[in-house]
Amino acid sequence: MKKLINDPFDMVEEMVDGFISANDDIVKRVGRRSIARLASPIPNKVGIVVGGGSGHLPAFAGYVGSGMADAAAFGNVFASPPAKPIIEAAQACDSGAGVIFIYGNYAGDCLNFDRAQDTLRSMGHHVETVVMNDDVASAAASEADRRRGIGGMLWVYQIAGAKAESLASLDEVTQVAQRANANTRTIGVGLTSCIVPANGRATFALQDDEIEVGLGIHGEPGMKRQKIAPVDEVIEDMFEQLTEDLDYRNQRVALSVNGLGGTPAEELYVVYRKVKELCDSHGITIAHKAVGEFVTALEMAGASISMTRLDHEMEALLNTPVNTCMFKKHRGEGN
Amino acid sequence: MKKLINDPFDMVEEMVDGFISANDDIVKRVGRRSIARLASPIPNKVGIVVGGGSGHLPAFAGYVGSGMADAAAFGNVFASPPAKPIIEAAQACDSGAGVIFIYGNYAGDCLNFDRAQDTLRSMGHHVETVVMNDDVASAAASEADRRRGIGGMLWVYQIAGAKAESLASLDEVTQVAQRANANTRTIGVGLTSCIVPANGRATFALQDDEIEVGLGIHGEPGMKRQKIAPVDEVIEDMFEQLTEDLDYRNQRVALSVNGLGGTPAEELYVVYRKVKELCDSHGITIAHKAVGEFVTALEMAGASISMTRLDHEMEALLNTPVNTCMFKKHRGEGN
Repeated sequence: MKKLINDPFDMVEEMVDGFISANDDIVKRVGRRSIARLASPIPNKVGIVVGGGSGHLPAFAGYVGSGMADAAAFGNVFASPPAKPIIEAAQACDSGAGVIFIYGNYAGDCLNFDRAQDTLRSMGHHVETVVMNDDVASAAASEADRRRGIGGMLWVYQIAGAKAESLASLDEVTQVAQRANANTRTIGVGLTSCIVPANGRATFALQDDEIEVGLGIHGEPGMKRQKIAPVDEVIEDMFEQLTEDLDYRNQRVALSVNGLGGTPAEELYVVYRKVKELCDSHGITIAHKAVGEFVTALEMAGASISMTRLDHEMEALLNTPVNTCMFKKHRGEGN
Repeated sequence: MKKLINDPFDMVEEMVDGFISANDDIVKRVGRRSIARLASPIPNKVGIVVGGGSGHLPAFAGYVGSGMADAAAFGNVFASPPAKPIIEAAQACDSGAGVIFIYGNYAGDCLNFDRAQDTLRSMGHHVETVVMNDDVASAAASEADRRRGIGGMLWVYQIAGAKAESLASLDEVTQVAQRANANTRTIGVGLTSCIVPANGRATFALQDDEIEVGLGIHGEPGMKRQKIAPVDEVIEDMFEQLTEDLDYRNQRVALSVNGLGGTPAEELYVVYRKVKELCDSHGITIAHKAVGEFVTALEMAGASISMTRLDHEMEALLNTPVNTCMFKKHRGEGN
């Protein structure tokens, strides 16, 4: 295992220290594994609390800042944060307007965020939860509540974050976050595995000429393992999975092409080119777009495509500037 | 070779198409392999022209936008752009105030940018050149003009870009760009190789337990190949190379920790933590900072550290907002 780390078991602590130090113009530490915006709590503003395992940066802590999340809890690599840092994060950003938890649908995260919610409610906090489940590859549409949350969080966080910046109520922010999630679908493709530092070996194996469509961000099995093919064919297939799952025809969308950690940006733009062509041929208008690394799986090579079907309110909310630790956007930018 | 591409020989064309399409709110195409800011040419503004081989995104095209570069030329992977796209880029952004070429010190780039400069001058354009040579590992201090340009360009481009936004003259922008380059040093460490698509095989070989300090962004040999060690030791060694080369003691600096393409952001923050500790112990104040991928080498794993010694003017210029295709910064941010 060749990584820029010291003892693998110290990696998360050292990463959190470095993260907070590097972003001390935006965030402050509010616990050993929890951070919040410098200005938290912001009077009358709903606090958005995110979190999940480490190894996915910019998700989750990278999205703390204006226009997205107010606070985040860090877990170990590929493991949910316990309830304690989630509670610390929520307490730090609850101005009295309440907090909303927005996280991906994984058993450990659901368990610990639910525990934190129970504790916080018993202390008098207003807490709502939106569980993201955008990954079409992780379960059939008929079992959508079993689907995992992955790359679509870039759009759900921005839409909810923008609504919260407007000082909307807890109910209003919750509703738009739920609507954003319900209108978002993602599908990924993995080319290589990754090594969790504390394990020291590849999480799974793919042959030298194999790729896996629908692979999860912790190496969960996808829809099919196949031989490597020209990317245009791979993307056509993935795009079909997305558009069969949700009717995007003649819609306006927010679209992101996400790198999983080990894929050069050049390849992500090759992917974007094909996705744009497919959107054009399906009458889909890309109103907002982003190409980069948004939800990673350590150094895994691969990419995912997320599309959020926008209504007028969501499209307008996405014009809000964003200034988080790892994602920044000026006013009214299309990407 | 597992990559998200079609025919390897079409990769750059397809990448450029996707790049321009994904960033059409910021840039426009001005040639087959050249882009410029939408607003180019901007009256009375010096145009900053950048460029180099592909495979290094965000360098170089990713830095076109307000606050950094005005236009860029794309080369093939790890190969200089020819003179033609450089000329197109320069013509697109020369408002009459002149243009300045800022690029890294590689033989092919020097040759082609010089050719373009000659042609443009013969056409009546005012053209100046600043060749970046921040990589301390690539030659001794006594032969600094043989040093390559690498990760320090993040700061040189921002400082020059901010000065040009203020509508300073060609001489003034050239002088501050030269001063920024002269006060910048970078050192990198490589953990793995990378595959140039058109070659289909690893550029060089490193053993499973080896790293190379000073490795170049095209796989050029570094200062020493050694066994993998705890990152704190590796960083101490690298930091010593930087601080022996330039006196940073009690200075204010802009500091970046750059990922080479295949290194998780988590590791970059572990690196930042150690660099910050070393700066503190050397009396170095980090006035501006950035952690992320700024100059990559396809999917190579590894990192580089760049430090620019700031004077009052450079430090103030770095408060200018940046809105480029792949690097964005709000006003007055420290990172």
